[in-house]
Amino acid sequence: MGKICFGVDLGGTTVKMGLFAVDGTMTDKWEIVTRKEENGKYILPDIAASIQKKIEEQGFKREEIAGIGIGVPGPATEDGTVLKCANLGWDVFNVTDELSRLTGIENIKVGNDANVAALGEMWQGGGRGYRNLVMVTLGTGVGGGVILNGKILTGSRGAAGEIGHIKVKYDETDTCGCGKTGCLEQYASATGIVKQANRALEQYRGVSSLQQKKTLTAKMIFDAAKEGDALAVKLVEEFGENLGLALAQIAQVIDPEVFVIGGGVSKAGQIILEVVRKHYEENVMFALKNKAFCLAELGNDAGIFGSAKMVLE
Amino acid sequence: MGKICFGVDLGGTTVKMGLFAVDGTMTDKWEIVTRKEENGKYILPDIAASIQKKIEEQGFKREEIAGIGIGVPGPATEDGTVLKCANLGWDVFNVTDELSRLTGIENIKVGNDANVAALGEMWQGGGRGYRNLVMVTLGTGVGGGVILNGKILTGSRGAAGEIGHIKVKYDETDTCGCGKTGCLEQYASATGIVKQANRALEQYRGVSSLQQKKTLTAKMIFDAAKEGDALAVKLVEEFGENLGLALAQIAQVIDPEVFVIGGGVSKAGQIILEVVRKHYEENVMFALKNKAFCLAELGNDAGIFGSAKMVLE
Repeated sequence: MGKICFGVDLGGTTVKMGLFAVDGTMTDKWEIVTRKEENGKYILPDIAASIQKKIEEQGFKREEIAGIGIGVPGPATEDGTVLKCANLGWDVFNVTDELSRLTGIENIKVGNDANVAALGEMWQGGGRGYRNLVMVTLGTGVGGGVILNGKILTGSRGAAGEIGHIKVKYDETDTCGCGKTGCLEQYASATGIVKQANRALEQYRGVSSLQQKKTLTAKMIFDAAKEGDALAVKLVEEFGENLGLALAQIAQVIDPEVFVIGGGVSKAGQIILEVVRKHYEENVMFALKNKAFCLAELGNDAGIFGSAKMVLE
Repeated sequence: MGKICFGVDLGGTTVKMGLFAVDGTMTDKWEIVTRKEENGKYILPDIAASIQKKIEEQGFKREEIAGIGIGVPGPATEDGTVLKCANLGWDVFNVTDELSRLTGIENIKVGNDANVAALGEMWQGGGRGYRNLVMVTLGTGVGGGVILNGKILTGSRGAAGEIGHIKVKYDETDTCGCGKTGCLEQYASATGIVKQANRALEQYRGVSSLQQKKTLTAKMIFDAAKEGDALAVKLVEEFGENLGLALAQIAQVIDPEVFVIGGGVSKAGQIILEVVRKHYEENVMFALKNKAFCLAELGNDAGIFGSAKMVLE
């Protein structure tokens, strides 16, 4: 085992990178731009060059490098094959082999970004101390990651933890980005929350502070609910109903120890945990009640932490 | 490793037992009655005595016995602790320790009966050749088992795979045995199917062969559907909608390779696979489409096979 490793979080706009001591301490952190030109052919070479530069700057020897972990924005199988990352322009290929060839480093671990973030939160974030965890990331979309016995559940096609597309409504007429209707993502993502609020505002006969906002955000809705605005309270309740139900469905399948809630929406804080827990309890059978719920703690760094952890486990 | 092992399937009425060579061949099979008197205190001693008798009859030496696997009708954690088996009268205790003490055999593995049956089907039944499998057992209730990388997913409280209590209807007024409403078990178990049929018959204005039956069974409904009876076809379609939706929700969480459908209801055969597959596909995201579906093959022996496999893996 080496002395240091790299954790890489490959996103559609930037690549976040972290340098870690094998004891888990992050000693450096930086970003490069994700060059998506020509079907993303420059992305891995850019990452390799950036890592190479860091190795030279810090004077590491080859044998001191334990490996590189990388989280990618799409399904990835256990051997590191990506099955298309639409927003990078990538087709099907093996990231492990390619990044190994480019860097000369053999130990390369590849994971889906949401799964990797879940592993990061288990390791040094909100899920510390647990080994069986479900993380749900409420951002522009809804992502998810399942950790069982301390390891990422990848699934047979790299699509485990796609909990944003659990169906929670049967009477929805609008279509989700995935082509289905009634997906959790349509109600619990930042965009989904705003969309539901705008729908409700059209119908609403009462007075709400939300009516004065030109462009609504999820934050405004949670803030208004905290101040007792009746419409906002109702919207937050509906958000909790949908997310709580989805987490209950997940528990019926895998019986985890804890749910970690992250992503931009989770910055609303305790109000999220309260409303989700309430509806989780209503929808889950006796043996699965009283699970732990907590907020994510690593923010945008969860991916680089989790990527490093894949190498170190 | 020994030469033989025992697989035990502990049910509320009988205990099924199998003797296996370590290559997986079942060489003997027998049953004893489950004595539930005095909170089930005789059950494990009876099992131990029956195994002891078989060992003596066949003249096995201690070192030839690889171990005993046992499936129990309730949640069981990985260390063999049962968390109440209501229909045996059992409270919380460690089955591994107790059965080891009674038999003098050290290698005892304990699992929930539905999980153990899933392992059996993976090993020598409908799921042969797969390592990531979900089994759903459609009997009096709906049971489930999840196998990941060839091993039972137990869950943090032994309640993984409780898929009979996934919520599939939001407008149900009747209560499930678990206390919730709208559980899969209310629509896809043998009892549930009959109940839904009786509900439909009350409202039905057309002519159906089901109207002539004094006491309906699930088999009658599937048989009538195969003959084109319009009401029965509609009922089977609704059954498929509910089960297909539940399996889609499961796939969004764990992305298995195959679904194995067993239990008495599954004797209806291919019609089940067709209708479930159709509604699964409607409810699952692109990356999870076209999964394998198959029927269970081991019938009532799945439990003893799976119990033996726990010892041999």
